[in-house]
Amino acid sequence: MSVTAAAGFRAAGVAAGLKSTGALDVALIVNDGPRSDAAGVFTSNRAKANPVLWSEQALEGGSARAVILNSGGANCFTGAFGFQTTHQTAERVAERLGIGAIEVQVCSTGLIGVGDETFRRGVLAGVDAAADALAHDSADDAAALRAAQAIMTTDSVPKQAVAIGDGYTVGGMAKGAGMLAPGLATMLVVLTTDAVAEADVLDRALRAATRVTFDRLDSDGCMSTNDTVLLLASGASGTTADEAGLTAAVTRVCDDLAQQLQLDAEGASHDITIEVRQAASEDEAVTVARSVARSNLFKAAIFGNDPNWGRVLAAIGTTDAAFDPYAVDVSFNGVRVCHAGTPDRPREEVDLTPRATRIVIDLFAGDATASIRTNDLTHDYVHENSAYAS
Amino acid sequence: MSVTAAAGFRAAGVAAGLKSTGALDVALIVNDGPRSDAAGVFTSNRAKANPVLWSEQALEGGSARAVILNSGGANCFTGAFGFQTTHQTAERVAERLGIGAIEVQVCSTGLIGVGDETFRRGVLAGVDAAADALAHDSADDAAALRAAQAIMTTDSVPKQAVAIGDGYTVGGMAKGAGMLAPGLATMLVVLTTDAVAEADVLDRALRAATRVTFDRLDSDGCMSTNDTVLLLASGASGTTADEAGLTAAVTRVCDDLAQQLQLDAEGASHDITIEVRQAASEDEAVTVARSVARSNLFKAAIFGNDPNWGRVLAAIGTTDAAFDPYAVDVSFNGVRVCHAGTPDRPREEVDLTPRATRIVIDLFAGDATASIRTNDLTHDYVHENSAYAS
Repeated sequence: MSVTAAAGFRAAGVAAGLKSTGALDVALIVNDGPRSDAAGVFTSNRAKANPVLWSEQALEGGSARAVILNSGGANCFTGAFGFQTTHQTAERVAERLGIGAIEVQVCSTGLIGVGDETFRRGVLAGVDAAADALAHDSADDAAALRAAQAIMTTDSVPKQAVAIGDGYTVGGMAKGAGMLAPGLATMLVVLTTDAVAEADVLDRALRAATRVTFDRLDSDGCMSTNDTVLLLASGASGTTADEAGLTAAVTRVCDDLAQQLQLDAEGASHDITIEVRQAASEDEAVTVARSVARSNLFKAAIFGNDPNWGRVLAAIGTTDAAFDPYAVDVSFNGVRVCHAGTPDRPREEVDLTPRATRIVIDLFAGDATASIRTNDLTHDYVHENSAYAS
Repeated sequence: MSVTAAAGFRAAGVAAGLKSTGALDVALIVNDGPRSDAAGVFTSNRAKANPVLWSEQALEGGSARAVILNSGGANCFTGAFGFQTTHQTAERVAERLGIGAIEVQVCSTGLIGVGDETFRRGVLAGVDAAADALAHDSADDAAALRAAQAIMTTDSVPKQAVAIGDGYTVGGMAKGAGMLAPGLATMLVVLTTDAVAEADVLDRALRAATRVTFDRLDSDGCMSTNDTVLLLASGASGTTADEAGLTAAVTRVCDDLAQQLQLDAEGASHDITIEVRQAASEDEAVTVARSVARSNLFKAAIFGNDPNWGRVLAAIGTTDAAFDPYAVDVSFNGVRVCHAGTPDRPREEVDLTPRATRIVIDLFAGDATASIRTNDLTHDYVHENSAYAS
């Protein structure tokens, strides 16, 4: 259940000194083919990190043979020197693997503004060590686990997933624990499959999958500069995937990883699903659910086990989705505390002590449904994010 | 320096048992004329509380002779019963003052969903007590102070201000400490003037003033259901205000009150001004500044005295304002830590220990400037907002 679950892939994770703790910090994923079709989705933030600028361009041909990832520095807002570092990283990987630099995707994560000479030396040394580790490692789960560990920042656990398709496999790994917001959550994700699939099929499958998974994870409303989700296909199974089946399998892996990201969100004490029902459209259901997921007051109330439906209604009242604010039902963990915009069941009936929290909002405006995953706003969130740089 | 600083106004603040602490909770402001021109600005939240629904309608004629305000319950999402409570409140005030109910503005603040029979009885008793108190009090500062205290919720101090115009006075009081976000911040504000001014002049002056003051205060991104800002003119000075002068005086009072709201924001340990310079337009400067004010990661960093300019750039990158992310300067308390999208002065030079914090963002895209006031995200914010209902 890893990034090497599909045939044709090797992985490595090494420690190159980018993390002051000495933990693993450089990962390399290699697609040994026979095919190298690939697709990617990148942050919609206009402030894109150097690796994103490189990888978006490099992926235009729809092909990738390797992904090099580092934690310990985002290489974002590091100027021309930073972009050269990304370029040199791709070239070093290409040299070691005997491929073209254009076939190398680069991902970085860590603090913005970190990308100096020391960082560059570390990353390049990491490339060499990872390439050496690859040579000695077969595509086993231990190497894939080390790769997943090497991309962790404030993550408490590595994140891996797998789905079995019709004659092929889709696997993946992810990192992300904060700055999780749409388009995309702050995260790096590498998905692999041994299906035979052209780049345009991969692209459609990946976009369809991220739209209903990572794009509906909104931990803290903050959008990162380095978000990257890649899907690489080796074709090693020999099975040509039908698009619907591939989309379903990729979606399952993305959904699994998105849930793992939610469960590991910085400082969270509740994993909250906000489901909006009977919306006029799916987009409006997402908008309404997201407005609640973005409300600090709502999130702080959940932290305090307070079924504060007033804050839910105050949040959805800021949207322009179709509904009558005085015809809305809201339930917390199955107890309808608000009916038709007025108090319903007593708040004392709601048990918010479990970590899993489910808010259901009925708009009575149509038949569309969508959910957003988020977390509560806690002391630990404030602590972790005020101390991140130290 | 209060809501009775201008001639022609009386005030009262009484305790009617709406607050469990027994503190003052009902305020009454009366305009004794000779004129009764008035204007108001109300929340743009679609989920409007019953008093907002009443007051917006009642103010359509551009006249108001009294404002009755209560804390201890927002009377929002309390159904038809709640609207009847508001209506009865206005009628009781009208009866006691010998005016029409339509000339009574009603404001409520406190928890959403609170507005039952007990609440109604308390408010109506408060009207009687306030009307009695008015009868015995002249328009002195002590009564005005009690009125300002009666509308406090999580506010730690009452908020009052005054500005002297050319032959007339503008005074005011405000409450608000959380749910402060544009259009408007969560707050009730009553402004009074003894200038002679028609309702349409008052309306333009008030909108011009709130646009650059309360609408640029964004404490936690949350928009309330009860926000109301009223401006009442008694004409008692006999001086007809020229519109520019009146707008300036009203703006000074609003700016003073907005700053008091910011300084008293729930749990804040830093009062942050985010100034955006050289924007293509004022609107875009506001959009960019607000994106930073809304970033929990930025706000948590400030709490930790961390000049994390990466989080500033990540936030502004989510906007569609005109600028090149790689040509932006950012300074924290006068130290330029980011120049042209790359690291500049060492972060160690920035002193974020003072409570007053100034972020300046230069976009190099035009010549417009605007500022947003906000606060940091602290443990106390989380604590206060998770325990609000208890």
